[in-house]
Amino acid sequence: MSHFSKKEKIIENYGIDKGKRSNQFKSRLYSEPRWDPSWKKFRDMEWETFSKLEVAEKIPLFTKNNRLYDCLFAQQFDRELLDRLCRVADKLREITKTSAGDRFVTNLLFDKRAILVFNQPSSRTFLSFQNACHILGMKTSEIRDVSTSSFAKGESPLDSIRTFASYVHLMIMRMKEDGFVEQSAWHLNSKTNRPIPIINAGSGTDQHPTQALLDIYTMTRLLDGGIDGKNIVMVGDLKRGRTVRSLSYLMKNYSGVKITYVSPEEFRVGLDILEFLRKHRINYTETYDFESAIRDADVIYMTRIQDEYDKNGESKKVDYSKYYFKPEHLKIIKPTCIIMHPLPRRNEIDPKVDFDERAVYWRQERNGMWIRAALISYIFNIDHKIMVYKVGV
Amino acid sequence: MSHFSKKEKIIENYGIDKGKRSNQFKSRLYSEPRWDPSWKKFRDMEWETFSKLEVAEKIPLFTKNNRLYDCLFAQQFDRELLDRLCRVADKLREITKTSAGDRFVTNLLFDKRAILVFNQPSSRTFLSFQNACHILGMKTSEIRDVSTSSFAKGESPLDSIRTFASYVHLMIMRMKEDGFVEQSAWHLNSKTNRPIPIINAGSGTDQHPTQALLDIYTMTRLLDGGIDGKNIVMVGDLKRGRTVRSLSYLMKNYSGVKITYVSPEEFRVGLDILEFLRKHRINYTETYDFESAIRDADVIYMTRIQDEYDKNGESKKVDYSKYYFKPEHLKIIKPTCIIMHPLPRRNEIDPKVDFDERAVYWRQERNGMWIRAALISYIFNIDHKIMVYKVGV
Amino acid sequence: MSHFSKKEKIIENYGIDKGKRSNQFKSRLYSEPRWDPSWKKFRDMEWETFSKLEVAEKIPLFTKNNRLYDCLFAQQFDRELLDRLCRVADKLREITKTSAGDRFVTNLLFDKRAILVFNQPSSRTFLSFQNACHILGMKTSEIRDVSTSSFAKGESPLDSIRTFASYVHLMIMRMKEDGFVEQSAWHLNSKTNRPIPIINAGSGTDQHPTQALLDIYTMTRLLDGGIDGKNIVMVGDLKRGRTVRSLSYLMKNYSGVKITYVSPEEFRVGLDILEFLRKHRINYTETYDFESAIRDADVIYMTRIQDEYDKNGESKKVDYSKYYFKPEHLKIIKPTCIIMHPLPRRNEIDPKVDFDERAVYWRQERNGMWIRAALISYIFNIDHKIMVYKVGV
Repeated sequence: MSHFSKKEKIIENYGIDKGKRSNQFKSRLYSEPRWDPSWKKFRDMEWETFSKLEVAEKIPLFTKNNRLYDCLFAQQFDRELLDRLCRVADKLREITKTSAGDRFVTNLLFDKRAILVFNQPSSRTFLSFQNACHILGMKTSEIRDVSTSSFAKGESPLDSIRTFASYVHLMIMRMKEDGFVEQSAWHLNSKTNRPIPIINAGSGTDQHPTQALLDIYTMTRLLDGGIDGKNIVMVGDLKRGRTVRSLSYLMKNYSGVKITYVSPEEFRVGLDILEFLRKHRINYTETYDFESAIRDADVIYMTRIQDEYDKNGESKKVDYSKYYFKPEHLKIIKPTCIIMHPLPRRNEIDPKVDFDERAVYWRQERNGMWIRAALISYIFNIDHKIMVYKVGV
Repeated sequence: MSHFSKKEKIIENYGIDKGKRSNQFKSRLYSEPRWDPSWKKFRDMEWETFSKLEVAEKIPLFTKNNRLYDCLFAQQFDRELLDRLCRVADKLREITKTSAGDRFVTNLLFDKRAILVFNQPSSRTFLSFQNACHILGMKTSEIRDVSTSSFAKGESPLDSIRTFASYVHLMIMRMKEDGFVEQSAWHLNSKTNRPIPIINAGSGTDQHPTQALLDIYTMTRLLDGGIDGKNIVMVGDLKRGRTVRSLSYLMKNYSGVKITYVSPEEFRVGLDILEFLRKHRINYTETYDFESAIRDADVIYMTRIQDEYDKNGESKKVDYSKYYFKPEHLKIIKPTCIIMHPLPRRNEIDPKVDFDERAVYWRQERNGMWIRAALISYIFNIDHKIMVYKVGV
Repeated sequence: MSHFSKKEKIIENYGIDKGKRSNQFKSRLYSEPRWDPSWKKFRDMEWETFSKLEVAEKIPLFTKNNRLYDCLFAQQFDRELLDRLCRVADKLREITKTSAGDRFVTNLLFDKRAILVFNQPSSRTFLSFQNACHILGMKTSEIRDVSTSSFAKGESPLDSIRTFASYVHLMIMRMKEDGFVEQSAWHLNSKTNRPIPIINAGSGTDQHPTQALLDIYTMTRLLDGGIDGKNIVMVGDLKRGRTVRSLSYLMKNYSGVKITYVSPEEFRVGLDILEFLRKHRINYTETYDFESAIRDADVIYMTRIQDEYDKNGESKKVDYSKYYFKPEHLKIIKPTCIIMHPLPRRNEIDPKVDFDERAVYWRQERNGMWIRAALISYIFNIDHKIMVYKVGV
C-alpha cells in the first residue's frame, strides 16, 4: 500500500535535498531554549544553595520578560499585580455572561494543555483550578496520587516532574512536602531548556499563594472602596493557619489597614508576623475578646482549628467555642461587614449564618475559580486581550 | 512594570467614578437568586419534614419554569416527557451522523461544565454520563471517591456538595447512601441562592431514574409500534432489583401493557408494586415457569441476582439456573421479541445469545448515553434547538 | 405542558406514517456492521485457536481497508508505515507552531471520544496518550483501576471491555495480563458488530508497540540521514527489557544497521532475537565491554534493570554499575552520537549527562506524544489531511 499521494509529494520535501535536510536536522536537534536571560546566573547553583536564598533573591528565576512566570510565593504579588488580577477576574465574569463572550473566553487558550499534580487530597482547590482551566478552553490531565502511580520504579521525583511537564504548557501542583513545588520550578527553569510555568496550589505548610489571592479578590470585590483603610479581624488558630499568615503579609500593599487578631492564647499569631507588620507600619491589635473585636470589623476572617498539625492532641485542650460565629452575632456586626472563611469549616460558623447576605464565604470560594482563571490568563500574557474585549458589541 | 495600556484605560473605568462603583459593588454583592417562585414555600422546611413528604409533594421543588430541573425520581417522567426525550435522543443520533451535525451538537453546551460525583463504583453509568456530556460539548470534572478526598477535614457532606456545585453548571451524582442525592438537591434549591441542576445517577437502593429512562427508550426505539399493548416479561431477582421496580412504575404511562413476572419464590416482586399495578389497572401475572412465559413475550427483561444485598448468603440457597436464558430458548421466542438486560450480567444470559439480533442489551447500554444526552439537553432547555435542526441541509 | 412547537411538528414525522415507521424501525434494529470483509473467516474461531496463530496470520483481523485498524504488535509496522508516521508527526509539530495551525489540528477529531483503560500504573504512557488525543481535539475518559471499579459485580472482563468500547471511538489499553489487549481486539472485531480501534499501550511482558515507535521516530528525527547504516548500541538488561526486543525486531526495516548488545552475562539478549537477526541478515555483536562499545556508536540505547520480573532477587547479585553512563563517557563518544533511554531511569545515567546536547531521552519522551498523535490520525484516516495542510498560508 502506498501512503503518499502526488499532491503530498509536491508539498513536502523532507529527505529529498540532503543539504537542506542536514540543516533541518540541526534545527530539530538544538531547539531554542525557553530561558529568560536573567536565569543564566542560576544555571550552576545547586538546590542546597538556592533554597537558602531570601525570597526576593529567588524571584528573578521565576520571572520572565518582567512578568510572573511561576506563581510560587505570596511575596510575588505587588499592589499593581493584585489590582490587575482583580480587574481581569471581574472582566472575565462580565464577558462570560453572554454567549458570544463565552465563546471568546473558551477560545483564549484552546490550544494549551495543563496538568494538575496533586499528592494531597484537596477537592476544593483541585476543582477550582481545573474549572478555571476549562473556562479558558484549556484541556487538562491529572495525577492525583503521585506516590503510587508515578514515582514508582525508582524514578527520582524531579525526573517525574520533568516527565509530567513534557506533555503540557502549564503545571498546577499541590504537594505535601514543604518546598517541593519551588524545587520543581527551580529545576525546570535552571536545569532544563524546556521549562513550563508552575502554579503552587499549596505546598506543605509553607505557601498557598492563590488562596491569599482569592481572599484579596473577595475583599476588593465585596468591600465598598476596596481594602484600603479597612478593619480586618482574623479569628481562630492564627498560629498554624497558612492563610492568615499570607494574608497578613499581603496587607503591606494596602494603606490604612488595621488588623485585629483574635485567638486563644495557645494559637496566637507568630511573632515573625507581628515583626513584619511593625516594620511595614501596619496597625494591629491582639485580643481574646471575640465579641468586642467583631463589632467594628469591616472583614471578619474566620478560620478552623488546624489539628492536623497537632503533635500531642493539643487542640483538644483548647476551648475553641468562644471563637465561634453564631447567629446572634449577626445583630452586633456592621451592616457592611463581610464574613469570610477559607473553608472547609467545622463548627466555627453556624450554617444558619449562611443565609445572611454578609456571609460571603461561598462567594469567596467561587471567587477562587475566577481569580485563578485571571492568574492563568496573566501568565499566558492574554490578560490584555480580555481587558480590551468589548462586551455586548 | 505597568500593566495598563492606554486603550484599556479608555475601555474600563472601574474604580474611577466613585458613585458608579458603589452601584457596581451592590450588584456584585447581591446577585439575583436562581430560584423558581414555587420553591419559596420550602425555604423554612427542614430535611426531616421534607423527606417524609409524598413524592408528588416534593416534585415542585425540583421543577423550574414548569420544566424538570433536578432529575431525581422515575415518578418525574410522564408520557409526554418520555416521548419527548426519546425523540430528542433519536434526533441527536441522526444529527451526529454528519460532520456538520456533529459540530452543531458539540457546540450546544460548549460553555457549560459538569461534575460527576460518584462514591460508588460504577464505570458503566459513569462513562455513559461523561460521554453524554462530551457529546454536547460540556467539560467535565470528576470526584470518584468522596470519602477520602472531600468530606475530609471534618466538613459536612452538604458543605462538600455545595462546594462541588460552586464551580459548575450541572452535577451528576451516584451515592451509596439512600436519599442523599435528593437531600443535596433539596439543600441547593431551598437553602442556597445558587442552585444548579442535579441528576441522580443511582442513589442507594431507592432510585436510579435514568436507568428506567434508557429501558423505556430501548423499548420505544426497538419495538415496532412502541410500548403500548406489549407483553413484557421480567425475569430474575425481582424483589431487590431497582430497575424492575422503576420500570413497573413507569408502565402506567402506557396503555394495554401486560407484565409477566418470572422469579424464584424467594425473589418475587414486592407487594407494593403489585398494588400499584392494580391501582393503575395494569395487567400482570406472576409465574415460576420461565419457558412458558417467554414464548409470547415482546420484551424479555433479564436481571441478575442482587447478592450484594444478601444478609446471610440467602442467594446461594436459590437455584437461579432455571431462570437463565440459553441459546436453545432463541428457538421458542417470537421473531420480533427483544431481550434486554441492565448489565452487568453473570450467567443469566449465555454469551452465545449475543449473536442473535434480538439480543439488544448491548444497544440498550449505548442507548443510555444518548437518552442521557437528551435529558441534559432538556434540562438546559436546548432540546428545541435539536429538534428543529435540519439534517443534511 | 406541551413539548412540541408547531415548527417541530412539521420537521419531524416520527410516528406519523406507520409504514415508514416500520422501515425506520428496521434500520434502527439492524445497523450496518463495521466489519472488514476479511474478518469474516475469524467469526467462528475461538480465542484458544486464534491466540496460537502466527502473528502474520493474526494481522488481517486487525487491518481494515488495507490500513492498520488495531495497533497491537510491533510486527504491524513496515518501513513505509514507519516513515509515514514519522513524517506525520514532524508535520503536526510544524503545523502547531502557528495559532491557525493549532486550530486546524485541534479540530481534526473534535467529534471523536477516546477512553484510556489502564490497570497498570504508568503515568508517562498515560499522559503521553491522553495529551496526544487532546492535541487532535478528542475528548477523553479514563478507567485507571479496572480491578475495583469495573470487573466488579462478577462481570466477565470481555463484557467490561465491550462496555467501555460502547461509548467511544477509540480505546487505548494498558494491561498487566499478557495477551489481554489482543484478546479484547479479537473479541470486538470477530464477535461483535460494533468494533472500535484499540491501541496497545503495553500488555504484560509481551508487547508495547508504541514505545518501539517512539524510539524509531527519535532516531529518524535526530540522526542525520536516518537509521540506515547506523551503529546502534543497546545496553543493560537485554534479557527482560521489552523495548530492546521490539526495537531489534524493527531493525529489519532498515538497511546496513549494526547492533551491539552490551550486558552482564546474566542479562544477555534472548537467543530468539539473535536468530531473528541472523535470518534477516542484520549485523550484530555481543560484548561485556561497555567503554569500547560506545566509542563508535551512533545511538547508545540505555535501559534500566527490570527487577520487577525478579523471581529470587537475582538482580541484586549483578554488578550493574559497569553499565552506567557517566559524565566522563561524554568525552569518548562521537559528537553526533545520541544517547537514548526509555525512562524511567535509576542510576544508569548520571543526571549531569542531561546537560549534554547528545542526551536526547527527554526529547525521546516528548516524541512519544507526537508519534502517538500521528498514529491516531493515521488510524482515523486523517493523516492525509495533515500532510497536505499548508503552513503559514
